[in-house]
Amino acid sequence: MTHARVDRTPPAACDVAVVGAGVIGSAVAWRVAERGLRVALVDDHPGCGASYAAAGMLAPVAEASYGEEALLRLCLESARRYPAFLAEARAASGLAVPHQTRATLVVATDDDDLRALLVLHRYQDELGLSVRRLTARDCRRLEPLLSPRLRGGLAVDGDHAVDPRALVRALLAAAVRAGVRPVPHRAAGVVVTDGAVAGVRLADGSELTAGTVVVAAGAWSGRAADGPLSGLSTDLVPPVRPVQGAVLRLRGRPAPDGLARTVRGWVHGSPVYAVPYGDGRVVVGATSEERGFDTRVTAGAAHALLRDALTLVPSLGELELVETTARLRPCTPDNAPLIGATALPGLVLATGHYRNGVLLAAVTADAVSALLTGEPSPDGMDAFCPRRFAGAGADQEVPA
Amino acid sequence: MTHARVDRTPPAACDVAVVGAGVIGSAVAWRVAERGLRVALVDDHPGCGASYAAAGMLAPVAEASYGEEALLRLCLESARRYPAFLAEARAASGLAVPHQTRATLVVATDDDDLRALLVLHRYQDELGLSVRRLTARDCRRLEPLLSPRLRGGLAVDGDHAVDPRALVRALLAAAVRAGVRPVPHRAAGVVVTDGAVAGVRLADGSELTAGTVVVAAGAWSGRAADGPLSGLSTDLVPPVRPVQGAVLRLRGRPAPDGLARTVRGWVHGSPVYAVPYGDGRVVVGATSEERGFDTRVTAGAAHALLRDALTLVPSLGELELVETTARLRPCTPDNAPLIGATALPGLVLATGHYRNGVLLAAVTADAVSALLTGEPSPDGMDAFCPRRFAGAGADQEVPA
Repeated sequence: MTHARVDRTPPAACDVAVVGAGVIGSAVAWRVAERGLRVALVDDHPGCGASYAAAGMLAPVAEASYGEEALLRLCLESARRYPAFLAEARAASGLAVPHQTRATLVVATDDDDLRALLVLHRYQDELGLSVRRLTARDCRRLEPLLSPRLRGGLAVDGDHAVDPRALVRALLAAAVRAGVRPVPHRAAGVVVTDGAVAGVRLADGSELTAGTVVVAAGAWSGRAADGPLSGLSTDLVPPVRPVQGAVLRLRGRPAPDGLARTVRGWVHGSPVYAVPYGDGRVVVGATSEERGFDTRVTAGAAHALLRDALTLVPSLGELELVETTARLRPCTPDNAPLIGATALPGLVLATGHYRNGVLLAAVTADAVSALLTGEPSPDGMDAFCPRRFAGAGADQEVPA
Repeated sequence: MTHARVDRTPPAACDVAVVGAGVIGSAVAWRVAERGLRVALVDDHPGCGASYAAAGMLAPVAEASYGEEALLRLCLESARRYPAFLAEARAASGLAVPHQTRATLVVATDDDDLRALLVLHRYQDELGLSVRRLTARDCRRLEPLLSPRLRGGLAVDGDHAVDPRALVRALLAAAVRAGVRPVPHRAAGVVVTDGAVAGVRLADGSELTAGTVVVAAGAWSGRAADGPLSGLSTDLVPPVRPVQGAVLRLRGRPAPDGLARTVRGWVHGSPVYAVPYGDGRVVVGATSEERGFDTRVTAGAAHALLRDALTLVPSLGELELVETTARLRPCTPDNAPLIGATALPGLVLATGHYRNGVLLAAVTADAVSALLTGEPSPDGMDAFCPRRFAGAGADQEVPA
């Protein structure tokens, strides 16, 4: 082990170094430390990546997409684990995590939107998912703030939401209480000795010794040039690319004056959602743009979100616009995450969760901690093995 | 003179205390100190009121309104003084103030907007103001980023813009260099002794001795309960009420890629403007809402500004949305400012500038400094005498 800055005390060795303290990395670090392993959590800005922009929808059913049945099963399994996951995170951290459990509404604005909604409903029905078809009048009975000019909708009883920033805070606190050591540095590479992982190289040149490295670095997981996997053969750098999502945070009064439940919908072909957290705060999202590692919110993105959200729920216009934020979803070629061991002994991935990071945190943390402790994995994890893209390294996929 | 907190050294006496360090108060303080008087400038948040939201348009001609001819003459006189005012502020402060001197375009989106534009043009023409009628094609030749779907426009060669935040910084620096003493406290009242002003009462209970007090406190000038004129008879509290204006700040590339000149227009009846400062920054404004002292930007206000600005200049959608800000314009019953002596000896007002604070700073500072030093006033200042509303105190006018 070498140190570029000899005046610096080398960090203590650990069993597992988790790179990335977003919702995935924090959950993994906590669950692994609970099993008795010594864990370090490496991040210079914990919770400030994609988790910071997330709306926190736990929405496997409304997000179901044709051809992604394995992903849907994983999302449903994680949703099933969520109540216990949240209860344990609360107990372990002492911090509350707002959890919205009213049925989600999915609504359509025009005839084309209604056709898209009915296609989704038919697919959900074929899969045996529990979704109720609603008239426009039914929708407004459930959520009186909806525009009277909608064409109809669906109610999804099982799709809920959490406050993602509160969740990350609770997971970080739970991790620290379980003995996880925060390492407030940027990870600049993986140390390999004798063909196996030996630790993490930090941006200041020092090294953190660890027998296992779990990369949960979101969109940065795929940056071969300067990401946490830089220096490895391109076969080992996963094909994760950034997809920008912009969201708006609004603040007003809680229900009954304010929005009572998550409303999703199509507005003349564009998807939009508004997620209330029960205290007057509402997140409106989300755009989806391939803009490399750019996290600036454009005027056009803010305009599109406001226009579409106000079309569904006009009274959102009265709320204060508190924040505009964009972050980068880690997207993979098949829209499914990369969870598990790689071809390099000791290198584990927990990344590529795209639109489902908050939802999949529960099952991902369980899967990784099972892998590291030799316990049985949750069912069906093979479909998310990182090796399925071997040879399709990031450099071929990520825009400049 | 009494002090609520005896452990505090009383501030040194001065000749003139200016209350409010926005664009008006800073300009007044600087000009008065230049004449050799000892000046204190009282503000706990200099430059953070209406000046902070202002777009900085110097637009007497485009802002001309029927029935407000005296105000128009004052605005034209201030515009005439502006080049020298800016040059002197730069020289006195050593700070640059971006000054946009390309002709302003005023455009119309639909037939109704075009009719409104032609009514304005006819009025401008009757007053002998220099305005050129343009076809939509002419407009796009002058500003290629304009939407191709406009109905026509006007070019106003004499309407320009300054960067208002840079201007306030320069005026504050010029004031300090001229000997003005900043007093970083909130003014809580005027001290009156023997029927004349004797100083300013600060929020911490201490008093600042001054023979003359100039109130340049914008929308707060009219707050009888807790503003700088609290404690005076309601006859002396001017009928100034807050009118919220929200603006957006965008950032992109400068011309020729970005907007080259100020574009104003009507979009289906709503006024909107986009002001570039030559370095890629653009301010889009402004809403106009009676919301009391509320400075929260609503989602609806941001939506309306984005919608209308992108209708006039679609490529603004590509710019980064950097900031959303709302502040309070100080409005009077006749939309004209209150500049000059009041019925209380030693109490001078320089407030109520409504939509024209930046533009009117030049002539207001000259008028107040002339008044305090016995020099001749600029012509026509009688029309803006604060005593014209005697008896119409603020408490009857300001919403709760």
